[in-house]
Amino acid sequence: MTEKLEAASLKRRIRVARGEEPGDLLFVNGKVVSTFTSEVLECPVAVAEGRVCALGGEGREADQVVDLQGAYLTPSFMDPHIHIESSMLTPEGFAEAVVPHGTGATVSDPHEIVNVFGMAGYAYMRESARDLPMDIFFSIPSCVPATHLETAGATLDADSVAGALDAYPDAPALSEMMNFPGVLFGVDDVIHKIAAARDRGFPVDGHSPGLAGPDLDAYLNALIMTDHECMTAEEARAKLRRGMWVFMREGSAARNLLDLVPVVDKGTLARLCIASDDRHPDDLVAEGHMDNALRVAVGAGVDPLWALRMVTLNPAQVYGFRDRGGIAPGFRADLAILDSLESFNVRAVYHRGRKVAENGRLLEAIERKNADAMLSSVRLPVDLDAKLNAFPSSGQVRVIGVEPAQITTRSEIGDASDAGPGKPIQFLAVVERHRGTGNVGLGFARGFDLEGGAFASTVSHDSHNLVLVGASPLEMSHAARTVADMGGGFAVVRKGEVLARLPLPVGGLMSRGDARKTASALAAVHDAAKACGCNLPAPFMTLAFLALPVIPSLKLTDKGLVDVDKFELVPLAL
Amino acid sequence: MTEKLEAASLKRRIRVARGEEPGDLLFVNGKVVSTFTSEVLECPVAVAEGRVCALGGEGREADQVVDLQGAYLTPSFMDPHIHIESSMLTPEGFAEAVVPHGTGATVSDPHEIVNVFGMAGYAYMRESARDLPMDIFFSIPSCVPATHLETAGATLDADSVAGALDAYPDAPALSEMMNFPGVLFGVDDVIHKIAAARDRGFPVDGHSPGLAGPDLDAYLNALIMTDHECMTAEEARAKLRRGMWVFMREGSAARNLLDLVPVVDKGTLARLCIASDDRHPDDLVAEGHMDNALRVAVGAGVDPLWALRMVTLNPAQVYGFRDRGGIAPGFRADLAILDSLESFNVRAVYHRGRKVAENGRLLEAIERKNADAMLSSVRLPVDLDAKLNAFPSSGQVRVIGVEPAQITTRSEIGDASDAGPGKPIQFLAVVERHRGTGNVGLGFARGFDLEGGAFASTVSHDSHNLVLVGASPLEMSHAARTVADMGGGFAVVRKGEVLARLPLPVGGLMSRGDARKTASALAAVHDAAKACGCNLPAPFMTLAFLALPVIPSLKLTDKGLVDVDKFELVPLAL
Repeated sequence: MTEKLEAASLKRRIRVARGEEPGDLLFVNGKVVSTFTSEVLECPVAVAEGRVCALGGEGREADQVVDLQGAYLTPSFMDPHIHIESSMLTPEGFAEAVVPHGTGATVSDPHEIVNVFGMAGYAYMRESARDLPMDIFFSIPSCVPATHLETAGATLDADSVAGALDAYPDAPALSEMMNFPGVLFGVDDVIHKIAAARDRGFPVDGHSPGLAGPDLDAYLNALIMTDHECMTAEEARAKLRRGMWVFMREGSAARNLLDLVPVVDKGTLARLCIASDDRHPDDLVAEGHMDNALRVAVGAGVDPLWALRMVTLNPAQVYGFRDRGGIAPGFRADLAILDSLESFNVRAVYHRGRKVAENGRLLEAIERKNADAMLSSVRLPVDLDAKLNAFPSSGQVRVIGVEPAQITTRSEIGDASDAGPGKPIQFLAVVERHRGTGNVGLGFARGFDLEGGAFASTVSHDSHNLVLVGASPLEMSHAARTVADMGGGFAVVRKGEVLARLPLPVGGLMSRGDARKTASALAAVHDAAKACGCNLPAPFMTLAFLALPVIPSLKLTDKGLVDVDKFELVPLAL
Repeated sequence: MTEKLEAASLKRRIRVARGEEPGDLLFVNGKVVSTFTSEVLECPVAVAEGRVCALGGEGREADQVVDLQGAYLTPSFMDPHIHIESSMLTPEGFAEAVVPHGTGATVSDPHEIVNVFGMAGYAYMRESARDLPMDIFFSIPSCVPATHLETAGATLDADSVAGALDAYPDAPALSEMMNFPGVLFGVDDVIHKIAAARDRGFPVDGHSPGLAGPDLDAYLNALIMTDHECMTAEEARAKLRRGMWVFMREGSAARNLLDLVPVVDKGTLARLCIASDDRHPDDLVAEGHMDNALRVAVGAGVDPLWALRMVTLNPAQVYGFRDRGGIAPGFRADLAILDSLESFNVRAVYHRGRKVAENGRLLEAIERKNADAMLSSVRLPVDLDAKLNAFPSSGQVRVIGVEPAQITTRSEIGDASDAGPGKPIQFLAVVERHRGTGNVGLGFARGFDLEGGAFASTVSHDSHNLVLVGASPLEMSHAARTVADMGGGFAVVRKGEVLARLPLPVGGLMSRGDARKTASALAAVHDAAKACGCNLPAPFMTLAFLALPVIPSLKLTDKGLVDVDKFELVPLAL
C-alpha cells in the first residue's frame, strides 16, 4: 500500500534531511501534531519530493519557507469509509468539495456505481480519481446486488469477486460484507467471497448494524475487520472487544458520533476511527467533511489530539498504509494547516508536498475525466405506461408506511381506492432500468401526502432502479420520462410540468457539476416536493431507501413487494 | 499474513458460535484479557478449529470444558524481534524452551545462520520451524555480511535480497537495516535493497542505535519501520515522534526496558512493543522469555494490561497479522493461562486450540528436523599454525581494550613483548572459516587476563568466523582444532588439555540439544575460562563481539584490525 520507491528521490530526501541540500518546503513556527505520541511539537518540518523528510534541525534551507504563524500542522484527514456516490458528485467533484476541508484520502466502496455498471463502474471511478489533489482508494464491492430479490445492473458472484481482487491487487479491502445473513447461514457464495479475499491477503470490511451476541460472534469468525454501523456505545464496546476496528459514523443519513463518544478512552483509542459512510452535497457545502466530524467529536469532549488520530493514523493503520497518517520522515507530505483544535478551520491543504487548497478554495480547477461509458444507464420498459396502469383500483392491499427521516418502514394494510391526489396513500413503482427486463414492481405508500404530481429518482439503494411515487400513474410516467431524458437523476413533475430536476447522468447517480450547484439543484427539488404537499424532510432519501430490501419492514423492488423480516416477495393485494 | 481459509472450517466455526453445535474447547471461569480495550472480561471463550469462535453466550457446549478457576486467559506472547541463533538452540530447542513460558510466536531475523550458509541457512530455519507448537516468522536478512571489512559465508546483494523476497512472499519484513551509514551515504546496493522490499510491499525493520537528529531523519526517509536499539526514554520518544514502532528491548546482552519505561504513556502505548533481540540459553532457563520481560515492565510500574498489549496486539499490528494478538472470534486460539498479572506465571499454553504446555513443561517432545546440510561449516586454513606464528614479538602495536559486559572496545597502544601468559595483553586471531580463503586476522587484546590457555568460538557477530584468544599461539591452535573437530562451538583449552567445550554443530552457532543441557555446558565453559584467570563476566559474549566492525572502537576481522570510527582497516604494528 505504499507506492514504488524511486532511488533517486530517496537519495535526494536523505541529503535534504542531512542538511546537505535545500528542501522543497520548510514549515516554520507551527504547532506540529504528532499522531504517534498525541503531542504537539514545536519544530520545523522539511519536505522534499512530496514527502516529509525531517522534523527539527537548525538552519535548514528550502526553496519555499512557509511561516505557519502559530497555526497547527496535521496530517490531512482520511475518511476510512465513504461511498463517494452519495455525494452525487463524481470523484472529481467530490475532491473539489472535500479537499479544501482538509480531506487528503478516503477508502471508498464504489458499490453504487458497481450495482449499475459492474466492474466497468469500478474502473471508471478509479480512472476519475487519478491525479486528484487527494487519494481515493477503492475497495472491491462484496455484495452486488445486495439481495436476490432485486435486479441490479450487474451481479458479482464469488468468481467475479476473486477476479476483481486479482485485477486490482492494490485495492485496500473487500468492501463491507453487508450480507451478514449469508455469513450466518454459511451460504457458499458468501463464504467463498470471504475466502477469496483472505487467501489473497485482503482485509474484509464489515457491516453489521445491531448485530450482537452469538450472531455477532458468528459473523466475526470470517475475520471481518471493521464496523461503521454502531449506534450505541454499548454496541461499539462489544465490537471493539471482539477485535473489530470501530468507525464512528458521522455522515449525512446517519450521525452516530455523539452517541458513541462514551466508548472513547485510553484503552480503546487506538482501535477507533471516524468515518462518514455517506455525505450529501448540501452537507458538504454547509458543514464540510471530516473537519465537521472533528468539531462534533471535540465539542462532545474528545481530546482533540485523540480525535485527530481517529482520522489520520488509525485509519492508515487499519488498511496498512505505512506512509500515511503522521508527520514523520518518509511519510507523505499530505498535510493540513488548522487555525485551532476547536474550530478545525482549515487554512490550507497540501498534497504530496504541493499546496492544493487555501482558505476554503482549491487552487486549481479539476478537469473531469471522460465519463461517456457511464452516461446511458437508464432504459425504460417499452410498455411502461401499460405496466403503470396495472395498479389495483380497489380492495385491501399492502402499504409501505414511510417515516420521516428514517430508512425503516412500517408494513401496513390499506385500501387501493384510497390512493390518489390528496388521498392518504400514493402510488409507488420500481422500474428495472439496467437490463431491459421490463420488470416493474408496484406498491402503495403512506406518508408522502401528495396533493398531486410525482417524483422520480434513479438513486435507490443498492440496485439503483428507477423509483417513482406519485398521485397518479400518469404523473409517474411523466416523471420517469423526465429522468430518463436526463440520463438519470431526480425530478418532480406536476400537471405536465417539470417543477424541478437534478440531472445525475453518470450512472444515474452522479452529477458532473460541482457540489454547490448540485446542492442548489437538490434544494430546488426538495422545494418542489414540498410544493406538491410532501412534508418529509428528505423525500428523495426516503425514496432512495424504499427499494432496499435489507432494511425492515416492507420494501418494493423491481420484482415486487418484499417482506424484509421473512426476506421474501409478497403479493400486493391481500 | 493470515493463513488460507478453509470454507468447511469457517462454516463449522459459525455454527459453533451460534450454539448450533458443540465447540472443541470452552474456557470458563476465567478472567479474559482484552488487548483491544485493555480490560479484563469475565466470560466464557469458545474455541473450534484452532480459532476462538465466541466470547460469552449462555449454555454453550464443547468437547472439553476448561475451568480456569479465576486464572487469566491472554493471547500467548509474540516476540517481535529475536535472533533465534542467540539462544544457541535450533528452532526446535528454542520452542521447547520458550513455549512453556507463554511464547506463541516470534518474528525472527536469521541473519546469523545466513551469514554462514546464505539463503540455505534461511531455508533450514524455516523448515526446522515447521510444525512447532509456536510460530516463527523469519524476515529476510538485509545486511549479509554486515560490512565489506570481513568475509562471511555468504553475500546477499540487492539482487539476492530481491530474489529472496520473491521466493518468500510470506516473510514478515526485510530484516533490520543495520547498515545505516549505507543509507545515510545513499549507497546504491543499500538503497536498492530498501526499494526491493518496498516495491514488493514488505516493511523494513530498523537498527539505529543512538542515531539522532538529522541523521535519524535521513535514515527514516527509507521508511524504516521499527527500532529495538533505544537506550534512553529520550531516544525512544524521538523515534516514536518520527513514526517508528519502538521495541523496548529486554534481552540477554542488552536490557533496556527499565530505562525506557518512562516513555510509556497513553499517547505512546499503541506504538510500543517489547522484544528480546537475543536471549541466551542460561537466561531462558533461569528467567524465561517474554514472561520475564512482562515481570520487569510491571515491576517498574507499567499497567499490566498495557504491558500485555506490547507483547500481543501491538507486535501483531506492526507486521500486519490480522488474526493474532487478541482473543476474539476469528482470531487464532494461541493462548496462555496466567496465575496473575504480577507473577505472569504461565500455567498452560495453547497453540491453535491445542494445549501444548502446562506447568513449565511441553506436553510433547519436539522431534529435530534434519540438519545435515548445516553441519560442516568450519574449515580451518591448512597453514593455520604458520599464520598464528606471525605475531610481532616486539614493538608498538594496536591493542583492543575489552570492557567487562560491554560490546564496545577501547582502541589502545601496547608493546607486543607484553603479550603472553600472565602478561597484560593476550594474542587474538580471527580465522575465516567459511570459504577457505585462508584469511587470518591477528591482533592483541587487553582485559582477558589469561594466566594460560586459550578460548575459541565460532560465534562471532555477524560473520561468525572463528575467533581465538590465548596466552600463546600454540594454545590458540589447540583451541581452534578442538572447535573445528566439534563442527563449531566454544572451547577452553590449557596445556594441551580441553578444559570445557560447548558443541554448536549447526552452522557453528546452534546446539541440537535442549536449553538446559546447553546452559549447563555454557556454565562449564565460563567456569573453565575463569580457571584460566579470565574474570570477564561473559567472556564468550565479549569474544562474539570482538569481530563486529560496526561497534566502536577497534575490532578484528579475518581481514585485519578495523578502526571502526574511520571504518577502515589499519595495520597491527605502529
